[in-house]
Formats: sequence, C-alpha cells, structure tokens
Amino acid sequence: MTSSPMRAAVLERAGTVTLQERPVPEPGPGEVLVQVTAVGTCGSDVHYYRHGRIGHHVVTAPLVLGHEPAGRIVAAGPGATRHPAGRRVSIEPGVPDRTCAQCRAGRYNLCPRMRFYGTPPVDGAFCEYVTVPEDFAYPVPDSMSDDAAALIEPLSVGIWACRRARVGPGARVLVTGAGPIGLVCLQAALAFGATEVTVTDINPSRLRLAAHLGATATVHTGQTPLRDAGVDPDVLLECSGHPAATGDAIRAVTRAGRIVLAGMGGDEIALPLVHLQNNELELTGTFRYANTWPAAIALAAAGRVDLDALVTGHYGLAEVEQALTAATRDPGSVKVIVRPDR
Amino acid sequence: MTSSPMRAAVLERAGTVTLQERPVPEPGPGEVLVQVTAVGTCGSDVHYYRHGRIGHHVVTAPLVLGHEPAGRIVAAGPGATRHPAGRRVSIEPGVPDRTCAQCRAGRYNLCPRMRFYGTPPVDGAFCEYVTVPEDFAYPVPDSMSDDAAALIEPLSVGIWACRRARVGPGARVLVTGAGPIGLVCLQAALAFGATEVTVTDINPSRLRLAAHLGATATVHTGQTPLRDAGVDPDVLLECSGHPAATGDAIRAVTRAGRIVLAGMGGDEIALPLVHLQNNELELTGTFRYANTWPAAIALAAAGRVDLDALVTGHYGLAEVEQALTAATRDPGSVKVIVRPDR
Amino acid sequence: MTSSPMRAAVLERAGTVTLQERPVPEPGPGEVLVQVTAVGTCGSDVHYYRHGRIGHHVVTAPLVLGHEPAGRIVAAGPGATRHPAGRRVSIEPGVPDRTCAQCRAGRYNLCPRMRFYGTPPVDGAFCEYVTVPEDFAYPVPDSMSDDAAALIEPLSVGIWACRRARVGPGARVLVTGAGPIGLVCLQAALAFGATEVTVTDINPSRLRLAAHLGATATVHTGQTPLRDAGVDPDVLLECSGHPAATGDAIRAVTRAGRIVLAGMGGDEIALPLVHLQNNELELTGTFRYANTWPAAIALAAAGRVDLDALVTGHYGLAEVEQALTAATRDPGSVKVIVRPDR
Amino acid sequence: MTSSPMRAAVLERAGTVTLQERPVPEPGPGEVLVQVTAVGTCGSDVHYYRHGRIGHHVVTAPLVLGHEPAGRIVAAGPGATRHPAGRRVSIEPGVPDRTCAQCRAGRYNLCPRMRFYGTPPVDGAFCEYVTVPEDFAYPVPDSMSDDAAALIEPLSVGIWACRRARVGPGARVLVTGAGPIGLVCLQAALAFGATEVTVTDINPSRLRLAAHLGATATVHTGQTPLRDAGVDPDVLLECSGHPAATGDAIRAVTRAGRIVLAGMGGDEIALPLVHLQNNELELTGTFRYANTWPAAIALAAAGRVDLDALVTGHYGLAEVEQALTAATRDPGSVKVIVRPDR
Repeated sequence: MTSSPMRAAVLERAGTVTLQERPVPEPGPGEVLVQVTAVGTCGSDVHYYRHGRIGHHVVTAPLVLGHEPAGRIVAAGPGATRHPAGRRVSIEPGVPDRTCAQCRAGRYNLCPRMRFYGTPPVDGAFCEYVTVPEDFAYPVPDSMSDDAAALIEPLSVGIWACRRARVGPGARVLVTGAGPIGLVCLQAALAFGATEVTVTDINPSRLRLAAHLGATATVHTGQTPLRDAGVDPDVLLECSGHPAATGDAIRAVTRAGRIVLAGMGGDEIALPLVHLQNNELELTGTFRYANTWPAAIALAAAGRVDLDALVTGHYGLAEVEQALTAATRDPGSVKVIVRPDR
Repeated sequence: MTSSPMRAAVLERAGTVTLQERPVPEPGPGEVLVQVTAVGTCGSDVHYYRHGRIGHHVVTAPLVLGHEPAGRIVAAGPGATRHPAGRRVSIEPGVPDRTCAQCRAGRYNLCPRMRFYGTPPVDGAFCEYVTVPEDFAYPVPDSMSDDAAALIEPLSVGIWACRRARVGPGARVLVTGAGPIGLVCLQAALAFGATEVTVTDINPSRLRLAAHLGATATVHTGQTPLRDAGVDPDVLLECSGHPAATGDAIRAVTRAGRIVLAGMGGDEIALPLVHLQNNELELTGTFRYANTWPAAIALAAAGRVDLDALVTGHYGLAEVEQALTAATRDPGSVKVIVRPDR
Repeated sequence: MTSSPMRAAVLERAGTVTLQERPVPEPGPGEVLVQVTAVGTCGSDVHYYRHGRIGHHVVTAPLVLGHEPAGRIVAAGPGATRHPAGRRVSIEPGVPDRTCAQCRAGRYNLCPRMRFYGTPPVDGAFCEYVTVPEDFAYPVPDSMSDDAAALIEPLSVGIWACRRARVGPGARVLVTGAGPIGLVCLQAALAFGATEVTVTDINPSRLRLAAHLGATATVHTGQTPLRDAGVDPDVLLECSGHPAATGDAIRAVTRAGRIVLAGMGGDEIALPLVHLQNNELELTGTFRYANTWPAAIALAAAGRVDLDALVTGHYGLAEVEQALTAATRDPGSVKVIVRPDR
Repeated sequence: MTSSPMRAAVLERAGTVTLQERPVPEPGPGEVLVQVTAVGTCGSDVHYYRHGRIGHHVVTAPLVLGHEPAGRIVAAGPGATRHPAGRRVSIEPGVPDRTCAQCRAGRYNLCPRMRFYGTPPVDGAFCEYVTVPEDFAYPVPDSMSDDAAALIEPLSVGIWACRRARVGPGARVLVTGAGPIGLVCLQAALAFGATEVTVTDINPSRLRLAAHLGATATVHTGQTPLRDAGVDPDVLLECSGHPAATGDAIRAVTRAGRIVLAGMGGDEIALPLVHLQNNELELTGTFRYANTWPAAIALAAAGRVDLDALVTGHYGLAEVEQALTAATRDPGSVKVIVRPDR
C-alpha cells in the first residue's frame, strides 16, 4: 500500500496550490501511518495561501497545508503498538520535543521545538497519507463522522480557551466573533456548564448559527453597541481579532473576570488599564492547546457539542484552492472539509 | 401579617414532633421575612428525629427542623433593600459570622460560629415563616417550581462535591450510593461536563432513577462487585457512607484521581494507603457548601438538572413525622417535601 | 480618654493640609478604638494632596488622609471582644460590606461598597485616634516596631502581587521600579522563595537599596536597555507605572509567565499581543489586597522582610505637608512615617 | 575512558552486596554518560538490602542500588548536545516514557512505565558510571558540593510534598518525623515561606538537628503528646510512617488544612473521618516528584537550604553494606553518602 505514490495538494507559493505526486511517508519509531479521510480548513491555511506567511513563519519551499485531519490507521512503525490497523482516529497535529521544560511541565503547546502540520517547514494533511506518533492519534467511536473527527482540532481550541478562562457551571460568557473559533468556543463554553453565552458578530447568518448551537443571546454589534446589550460577563472569549471590539468587550467584563484572546489580532492592542486593574481582570492568550483530545472526543461522542453543524462544504484534493477561498466567495461559509478520497 | 402566630412543627424530643403555635419572627437589620412554600426533608432531619443528636450536636430543647426552604418575601428588616415583597426565593440555610478568617477567605462553610437552620440551637424551616439575611435569599425564576427552589440546597451539596473534586468536561466519575445526595452528585457531575458517570447502589429503583437522570452506567453492587464493573474513574464521589464500599471504590480510582467523601460514615475509615500514595490520589470531605446558590439556580433554571424528578411525596406541617419516616416505609422514596400551606 | 478632642491633619483642598481639632470617634458595634502610633505615607496620599483627586475619586470635602496605620487598642465598642486594651495592632484600612458576591467569595478587595481610609468620603489615619472593626486590627509582637507595624500595609501590596503572580520557590522575578511598591514586591518575592529577583529603576540610590534588600541583580534602565540586561523572568511585577517600560518588560517574560501590573499607569497601555499570545502569558492587575495581614505580620516578625529599612523620615501631625512633599525634595526618600505623638 | 570495566556494588540477594566489575554503559540517543561522584543512601535502598523487596517490587536478579547521584559529564550519545564534557550535574533518577497521558499532563512521576534507578529491574548509581537522558542531568554551580548535588534528590521529595500541600508564606506546618525526609520537608517548608514549622520525633539528636536547621519548635512525642504541644498547623507533612502518629497528627490540623503523607506506612491507615469532613481537610500522598530539580538546585545554590548539614558519613563502593547499615548502628546517622572515587 505504501510503495506507490500518493496525491498531495502543495502550496507552491502564495496563491498557488497544485496537485502533485509524493511518496507515501514511512512511519518512524513509535509512529503510525494514517490514511487521511477528512481535513478541516482553517483561517491560518487561508492566510498562508494568500500571503505566504504568518508573522515570522514564512513559506520558502513548497508546503502541504492542513492541520485538522482525521483518518484510518494503515500501518505502524517500529515499537508502535497502540492502534490496530483499520482503526479510525482523530489526529493532534503538533508534536513537541517531549524533553524541554515546557513539555515536562505538561504545557507542550509552548515547546520551542514543536513540529506542527502545515507550518513551515512541516508538511500538513491535504494529502492521502500522513505519519504521526501513535500517542497523537486518538480513537474515535463509529458513531462519529469523519468530519467531526477532523473538527476535534478546532473544538480543542475552544476547550483550551475555556480551560484557560476557567469557565465553569453557571458562568456568564461573552464570545466576540461567530466565526469557526467563536462557534467552537460557544459550544465548549456550554459543555463546560456556562448558562449564559452571548455571541457577537456583524454577520447575521453566523449569529443565526450561534443561536442554533445554543447561544442564549446574540448581538449584531453593527446595530447594537456592546455597551447597550446588557451583558455582564465574567468570562470574555475574544474570537474576532478586532482591536476596537476587544477594548469594548474587555470593558464589559465584571470584577475578577477572565479574558482569553483566542483570535489573532495585530501586533499590539490598547488595553483599558484602569478597568483591568480596578477589577483585577485576568487576561491571557491561547497558543494552540495541550491535552485536549480526550475531552474533546468524549464531549463530541456524548453529543454535548455538534461539530457536523459547522460544516458548510466538502472539496477534493484537486479543489483545495476552492476550499481555501470558500469563505471569501460565500459569507455563509463556516467550515469546509477537504476529503482526499473525493 | 406578622402579628398573628404561625404554625411550626417542633421536635420536642427524639421521636416526637408536634404542631405548635409560635410568634412570627421579626426580621432584624439586613434580614428579610420569608413565607415558606416548600421545604425538603433531609437525612439529617431524620437522624435528629430518630436519635435526638448528630455527633456532638445534641437536641436539648424543642427544635424546629428543616433546612431546605423556598418561599416568598413578605417583609424586610432595617436596611434590607435587595428584595421586593412577593419575590420568590430559595434560602441558603446557614449564616456565618462574616468576620472570621474562614469567612474572609471565602470558605464561610467552615465558619466556627455558623448558625444553621435546624441544627441545635437554631430553629429551621418546618414552619410558616422564617427570617434570613437578605443575601442568603436568592431570587428564582417563575419557571422554577417551589419544590425545585427548595431542592437548590441538596443540589448545592452536589455542586460543592464536584467543585472540590474538580470535575470537568470529559471527566469519568463514580458515584457510590444513589440516595438523594448521590443523585444530586450525579446530576451536578453531568452539568460540570462529565461524560461518564457510573452510579452504584443495592436498591434497584434508585438505580433506575439514576439511569433516568443520565447515569451512563449503573452497578448493583450487591450483584456485581465494583472491581468487576470495569470502571476506571478519575473522580469518586462517595455518597453511601459505607466504610467497606468506600475502600473498594477508592481502589478503583486512577492515577491523580480525586476522592470526595460526601456521605457521612462512621468515625474512622480504613484508607488504602499504598494505593493512595502510589497514585497520588487526593481525598477530602465536604462540609455543606459555599457560594453555590447562583450556579445551582442557573443550572436548574437552564434545565441542566432536573430537581422535580427527585420528589416522591408532599406533606403538610401536621404531617412532618410522616415525612420524616417516608424513607423507612417506602424504599422508592427519594425526596419528600413539606409544604406549610398544605 | 475619648471625651476630649483629638488632633487631625485635614486636607482642605488640593495643596492645603491644616491641623484641626476633631472629636475622638466612637467605636460602633464590633469596632475598636485605636490610638494611632505610626502611619506610612503613600503615593496616593501625595496624589490627593497635589491634585485633589485620583481618577473618579474626588475630594469635595475636607478629608483626613493616611491609610497605613499602626496603633494601640484603647477601647472597644459593643460586642467587640477580641482585643484587650493596650494591645499593639496593625490596621487593615479598607472595610468591605461582607455581604456582596465578591466578599462572600473571599475577594473582599473587589467589594463595590468598600470603605477605605483616606479615600473620599472616608477619613484616614493622619490623626490621633481611629475606629476599625476588630477583625481588621491585627496583633503585632513586641519585637516589631511601630513603623514596621504601619508598613504591613505596603508589604501587603507586595504579598498580593506575588500571590496573583504565583511566585514560588525558584521563581525568577523582574521588578520594574524601585519605589516603595517595587521594594516591597522585591522583599515579598524573596519571602515567597524567588531565587532571582532583578530590580530596575533610573534612581541609583533606590537601586542600591534594592541590592541591600536582597535583589540578585539591579539594572539602571537609563544606562542599560532591559533587552540587553540578560534577564529571563517567569514573573514580572510592574511597579513603575510607565507604559513604555511596561511594554519592554512584558517582552522579556518567558513562556507561561505571569505579569502583574502593580503600578498605576495611564488609562490605556499598548499590549504586545503576539508575544503574549504565543507564550500564553497571563496578565492581571492588583487592586489593594485581601487576606494578607496574617502572612505579612508573620513574615515581618520572622525577619524574612525588613520594613524598617524602608523608612527615611518621621514627621509629626503638624508636619504632614512636609511628609507629603518629602519625595519631591529628596530623591533618596523612600517611605516617610507620620507619628501623631511626635 | 569507557572501554575498560567499572566497579559496581551489586545487591545479589537480600543482605548481600558485593563489589563487581561491569562494563561501562554506552549512552544511547539523547543520553549522556556521567561519572558518579556522590550518591546519597536512602531508606528504600536499606529496605531492598534487608528484605529484597518493597511491596510488589521484588529483587529477582542482581541489582545495583542507589538513586541519589551526582557526577560529571564524560560523554554524550547521538543527538545529546546540552552538556559539555566536564560539567558537574545532579541526576534525576527516574525516566518516564514521555508519551502516556500522565507524562503529557506534566505528572510524569505517575508514568506507569517509569524506569527508576535502583528499582528492579533498573540498575542504580552505586557504581562508577551511569547513563541518563540529557534532560535528566542538571548543571550545578561550582559552589555546590558533590554531596549537596546528590542530595538534590531528597530535597526534591521535600519540595514535592510542599507543593502538593500548597505551603506558602506564613504557613504553619507540622512535620512528623525528623529522619532524612522530615528534615528536607522542614527545610523545603521554610524555603516556601512557612513561618512556623514544628517537627516531632522521639530521637533527641534528630530533634536537635531539626532545631539547628530552622524548626521553630520541636516536640519529643515520647514525652509530650502532640495534643498537648499547642500546635495548630494548616499543613501536615507526615514523614514518620507510623499509623498511630498519623492519626494524632491529622486531628491537630485546622480547618481547610492540607495533609501530605510523605512517609511510607503500612497498607492501610485509620482515617479520622469526621474531623476530616467537618474541616474539609485535603489528604494526599506523594510518589517521588516531577519538575523539582530546577527549583531544588536554585534553593540550594542560594543558600535557602543546607544539604551538607544532613551528611553524617561517607563510604566507598567497597563499603556499601556499611553505608546501608549506618542508621542501624548509629542513631545519630542521618544521611550517608557513597563516593565511588573513595
């Protein structure tokens, strides 16, 4: 199975993805080979496609994008014994060095030598086969769709944001931005027991989806300023990446509240210092996630979140450029899936 | 309204409750007067009724039992401004001194000068009217029944157990004992995001109720030893109060697990020391609760828990003895409610 | 003793403090009357003196400043039983309402109805006698000087900053600013077990004092930019209040680090967002303190911190204006003490 | 250097250690070869020597004991780049699999596949050379003695106990047992900021050493029952391993206190359940440590703890049996060091 070449969608330079043949990778010690069944498309894939870089991560050689993969185990490298062939898995796409102080403390997302799918120079999953250490492939139940198994990755972003914000039962949460990250933060917050989750955006179709997914209130901030919306959150999950919206939202947070900046904004934001100090707000950001897959799979398998509801389109490997431009063409697009077997 | 006497069910001595007239209490500074609409009956009420004492708390003078009250605001004492007359409230039944180190640190349940309803020498709520500091009366929505408003108290016990056990999304929880406390712990654990909650008991009707309320598995430990049940919990909420069951359950808990002893057992239990040390299990008990009412009301109002499902009977003030002996007469009894207006 | 008038230094308007006679206050229920022996002078006292306001706190009527008092119990109000007459105490100068959600959760510093000494309209301690609830007066040992007993208040600021920053044994801490707050943060960090504490300032005499108090390194940031100083802190305690310095200092903090803004800056600061997100830094402010006096007294009594070393001058009640301008006149001034009996 | 054989002290069976020649081990990928300079002798070494087993860990083949080593880097395996030859290091003696859920969560001490020096079937450090992954060898400063570098291991036990007990500034700590573990717990507690540390034992010389190391009180529990000693700890670090002493000590702990069982006792202890529940005490055990070496080295290097003061004897490799029986022969023995070059 692994002797013939595979197809891969390769970002050659900003704006150009081509379908190419590549050798099927060999699983190394402790690794498994996974046949990819579904890969979510993320805003960072789109950013690399358009601009050829994100910050100081620059695409200088052809790169396979895609870091939200699900698949099926097809082979195991030396010493890899956890997974039988044929098992369906969700893949955690970043592998740390396991030996640095951050890894050993359980914060492996902050490992300075992390190798992350679809981030230069590490190839991603818009292809037929990938390898991964066996402990970064997680079994999913038969009841879970391939799409949902792929979207365990964005759900992990939401879970990580909620953990860092210490969302708990009875929490009142404000989610600014109803894009894919905002919608997984919403669902994660509800699964963490939040009983009020207000979602803001300026896109009516996204606000409708938020309401469908359980938001207890939605605010079209192009029509109603946040300060008039009557919200009183103890947690803010900032998913819009808009500096001005962020300042307004921070001012709405109550005493001892927590603010997590999950959206990527510019290099600097102006922080309302007096409000933060007088109310002892805690502010932090998220950088990917750590130790989220088991909880994410358990929540999705138990029906506490609905990942399939986020999917608005499917594309084959030859259509990756269309997948990466879907959001531009269709404001109703939320999450599109690349299916290598399509 | 408050000048005429009220009726109260008074425990005169172990085994004897009589209906008496008492003056309606006057709300002091910062207090409100509440007309009681529903009061849950608790195992500790039953214990006082049968034995006239719990540990070193001894009933030496006539005592009104009942510490799970809901009601309606009818008057306010000097300086009490939070609640309009007519508001429906759930009452938190223990008032701390607010000045000791425990209170000031937010652990007011450990206040050495706590005054707690229905605990000698403080009268409880099996009567028509009670007073309480206004911040210990919490508004409930119209959609919530009087019974549910009363059962916010036992739900608080479950919430407190889950907080101390750090139950979170994806947790695997073992609840030993499907009595009222076990059933609120089950419901609280689900509301905290647990995705596996196994409940054990030897009473089939209680296990059926546990399954109805969302337990993912139930084990009749009279038929299947726990070690054969295939459970692998990271949290144990011990609600049976049986020392032998406790030891078996502790041995089932996985590495880094948490154990909360919510049931009252004997003076000592034998702790499996090597298992606890080698796995760094954390063990603690609960003593009532602190700062749980807002979350409990929010969860019940949002439908995340079902308190009405626990109610198996209603009694008037003249029937308090029947209420206190309901569990003895009927193994299907779970939670009975005293309604002063009945 | 309390029938004759007392002397008080009264801020009549910005720039004018006069010595006046006032009635000795009567201790209310649960309160004690304290004869003031020493009061530290704080930057906020100076700010009120110069500008007549701090933010939205405006001095609109004559006000006694001073919120760092020590003294001796001279009388007790009804129900106050903790302290015998003659006991030496340190006073915590802010009294919360004890009934709001923040108070009950143990975060009483965030109480919206806090009454704080020397903050309009509440009089402070630049006078001979003050009243305070008995639980906000704390015994100090005979070995502790009156000055040190007064400076338990600023030490509490340092302890609170270290708690919020989770300073622990082996921590590497950067303290920006070697004023009184920076110096108590330095001492608190060492007492919390930090083994590297770097202090920055542009005042050489303050840096020398920092080194004397145990700083493992000092940096004159007017001569050496922070980025060239080779620091790699996991905790930043920002005590300078300078927005530019704050940005530079945040950029120095390592992965998973904590930042506490203890200095008061302007209304907004520009936050280096990408650095904060990519390293998951946690940022918060401090607003006074809660539950710090027992630890502060224990540390000072055990010699783990040296509060007397901060004192650079003493003034009588008639000299409060000189006390409030000492820092302006003398760059070597750190902490000046007002002694009502002088 | 590594081609000739080395000397090793080998436990052949319970009661018999012989000096043998063994090949110098080869460092594997990511490993370093360390020439051992000093190895502490631990109670578990003594237990293996006497009984040939600890619980289910049974010595079924010749075994090199010793798990408290310091040494000097002499060679590096493939890919090991962190340490130059000649560097002095302290070695963390247990290497986890780095891939299980416990490892990835930062709790690698609970890794089920941990390989730990001197625990069957893994050889330890009573020999001339050992190999270790480079991230488990930590540089020590020139100012630190070889003995102290070896005793970073027991200090880690104390640090881990204090972390799990949340010892902090101002804490009041009770340490039961003044053996080597009790004495490192004492020193760690002081370094964590505890201002009262009471140590109990029935050995006067050990109590004198505790006082010398900073205990604020010592209690000879053979002469003064603990309940008469006037202690009121909020933390208990149980280092005696005596079940009866443990029960008495737990009863002394105050509300919301923490109990860490660091000593190894029998299979079960009787837990004073009512006291634990009514006061919401938290009880846990320790199993080795995780992520303690950097803090331990920093504290020892800064002079916050005195490890050399624990050393009561030195032995060569040919004298390991004498080292393992020193405590039996001399009640004043605390910690003996094996020096392979002696």
